[in-house]
Amino acid sequence: MGSASDEASTAGKVISCKAAVIWAVGENPVIEQIEVAPPEAGEVRIRILYTSICHSDLHVWKNKNTSAMHPRLLGHEAAGIVESVGEGVSDFTPGDHVLPIFMGECKECSFCKSRKSNICPKFAVNPMRGTRMVDGKSRFSVKGQTLYSCYCSSFSQYTVVEQQCVVKINPNAEMDKVLLLSCGAGTGLGSAWNIAKIEPNATVAIFGLGAVGCSVAEGARVAGASRIIGVDVNPAKFEKGKLFGITESVNPNDCEKPIDEVICEMTNGGVDYSFECVGLPKLMESAIKSCMIPGGLAVICGVTASRDAKMEVMPQLIIRGVSITGSMYGGWKPSDIPELVERYMRKEFHIDQLITHRLPFAEFGQAWQLLIDGESLRSVISCWD
Amino acid sequence: MGSASDEASTAGKVISCKAAVIWAVGENPVIEQIEVAPPEAGEVRIRILYTSICHSDLHVWKNKNTSAMHPRLLGHEAAGIVESVGEGVSDFTPGDHVLPIFMGECKECSFCKSRKSNICPKFAVNPMRGTRMVDGKSRFSVKGQTLYSCYCSSFSQYTVVEQQCVVKINPNAEMDKVLLLSCGAGTGLGSAWNIAKIEPNATVAIFGLGAVGCSVAEGARVAGASRIIGVDVNPAKFEKGKLFGITESVNPNDCEKPIDEVICEMTNGGVDYSFECVGLPKLMESAIKSCMIPGGLAVICGVTASRDAKMEVMPQLIIRGVSITGSMYGGWKPSDIPELVERYMRKEFHIDQLITHRLPFAEFGQAWQLLIDGESLRSVISCWD
Repeated sequence: MGSASDEASTAGKVISCKAAVIWAVGENPVIEQIEVAPPEAGEVRIRILYTSICHSDLHVWKNKNTSAMHPRLLGHEAAGIVESVGEGVSDFTPGDHVLPIFMGECKECSFCKSRKSNICPKFAVNPMRGTRMVDGKSRFSVKGQTLYSCYCSSFSQYTVVEQQCVVKINPNAEMDKVLLLSCGAGTGLGSAWNIAKIEPNATVAIFGLGAVGCSVAEGARVAGASRIIGVDVNPAKFEKGKLFGITESVNPNDCEKPIDEVICEMTNGGVDYSFECVGLPKLMESAIKSCMIPGGLAVICGVTASRDAKMEVMPQLIIRGVSITGSMYGGWKPSDIPELVERYMRKEFHIDQLITHRLPFAEFGQAWQLLIDGESLRSVISCWD
Repeated sequence: MGSASDEASTAGKVISCKAAVIWAVGENPVIEQIEVAPPEAGEVRIRILYTSICHSDLHVWKNKNTSAMHPRLLGHEAAGIVESVGEGVSDFTPGDHVLPIFMGECKECSFCKSRKSNICPKFAVNPMRGTRMVDGKSRFSVKGQTLYSCYCSSFSQYTVVEQQCVVKINPNAEMDKVLLLSCGAGTGLGSAWNIAKIEPNATVAIFGLGAVGCSVAEGARVAGASRIIGVDVNPAKFEKGKLFGITESVNPNDCEKPIDEVICEMTNGGVDYSFECVGLPKLMESAIKSCMIPGGLAVICGVTASRDAKMEVMPQLIIRGVSITGSMYGGWKPSDIPELVERYMRKEFHIDQLITHRLPFAEFGQAWQLLIDGESLRSVISCWD
């Protein structure tokens, strides 16, 4: 890893580095040499050490409505080191170990000032824009063209983000692991702790045992849940799930009845908490119907591929005591994350086994395909190997 | 009002009294002479002084699936005096001033022992049964036939309910007013305070300005909401709403855009809390879409006429921070109600203006029609005049 002095040599200059570029909607990423502008006022340029790929990157990749925003640079689950900072940035110094966070925190709006929501409208994610920067401009170019971006543009050896979208973490944290806290693992753990607030002996059902679902299970396990039922159509996920506290598994394809009926029978009326971690409206409906009447809570963690997707909900369930809520990044505000890293370092929870593959940057395309094929939970890509 | 000694004269005997009986689905209630059995073990027989009619009575009245359960005796918003008690009842004594509560509290199950839900499965409402009693039997007969019941069977001069469905209140409370706390006003106030937990300066939209909607407004006003927007297609409701804190009114029939868009424009992105107080799935959808992104909460207070009704919800709204929850009786457990009556007596809120009509029992049918026609908020019916 670079030291502060290493980083300083590039300060103020355009950096030429490698990045995985999407040239058109649905086309596989290609490693290209790109140019990264110096950070402007209030911004931080980060040397990305490790990145991973999240399903929401795939959603943006496939979104035909964004065809005008290509070539494009995605990525947001990452860890790196501050290379340089723009004017007026005082909270970060070159050499700081940081996680970029895909949703920022202005710390000034009513949302940032309350605990009611962790979504700051100013720094919320919007994949329909050509950049994550508030000024609407890109800091990247490739082959002389604007390289549009999204999220934190971490599929690159260097990125630039606004200071509101970075957090400084303990320099002793293992960067190739804690990167998972910047999206998938953070979302799952926070969904269990911050959104559902699972209490000891609660019953839980988790729909989809990917990285988010397994992390929800880990959060539920740590919170003391008595039963953690994993639901997936891929039985290979069940063994993995056990490592994160899944106590029972159900494959909807093996069931004669709708999966929600099966879960309600298994639990004498439904679970205290259900989590949808895939992003399929039909599965969300099942998660809602798997909730205990009264008092059950369905937490929607999965992002639908289409923003216009709809699900059907029976008001009768709601009036009889089932609630529905969403989890964007597990309710964490960016400023909560340094302490989450400390908790990881104190071994209060584990996430290492979410990492199923480790690949050098040249094999970025393979990591991409592994996720599409459901063969990986998380591939950690070393950006400099 | 009767004294304890008056009541005792009928103890242990079948009482013959007047009641408003529904002979068949959708047929108007008819005042009949009925027989009311003495209370069995654990039960309380109540001399009903005042009753009112709630929309959920109308729902049951119109429900074709209950045709085998007639003749039927409905009613649950009421106040009365204990006439006699069954074996083993020690918390009530003849002469106690009480409110029957349509959902009981066993105080032993996990729901009763927690604050997560106020719905006790053992004593939950189920209009599809022929009685509210756990043993499934009716305590009433008319013209030699079983008189099936529902809720607390308060459309009668006497009723019998289980002790878990009665609360003793301050004998100085005005019975012809506090009866409204046993359903409509209680539901509205509790929805604002217990379910939404409205905080000072919050913005609120209320869909449907009936007794429940006006009571939500009163709860929001007391909680310090800054804007309380009333939505109704009957402009006559707006003047009434102002008495309960409604600050602005919108008639969807006067709007060119969908009402949720109108509300989002009025409030720069949506309200902190929306309440559906009618029971129409389309209106619930509007209430959900009127919520602030992020952090808005839609509270479903209205009961749909059909238990199979469905509404469409966009997962995108949920993941972006809108939550949906239900309010059954405003989250109150029966044991909370005596203190709610005390708060009324201390004038911490007002409900008197919900009473638009006062009628003697002989004019029960007129009160029924006034509610159907949307001409009344609440008619208080004196059972002995």
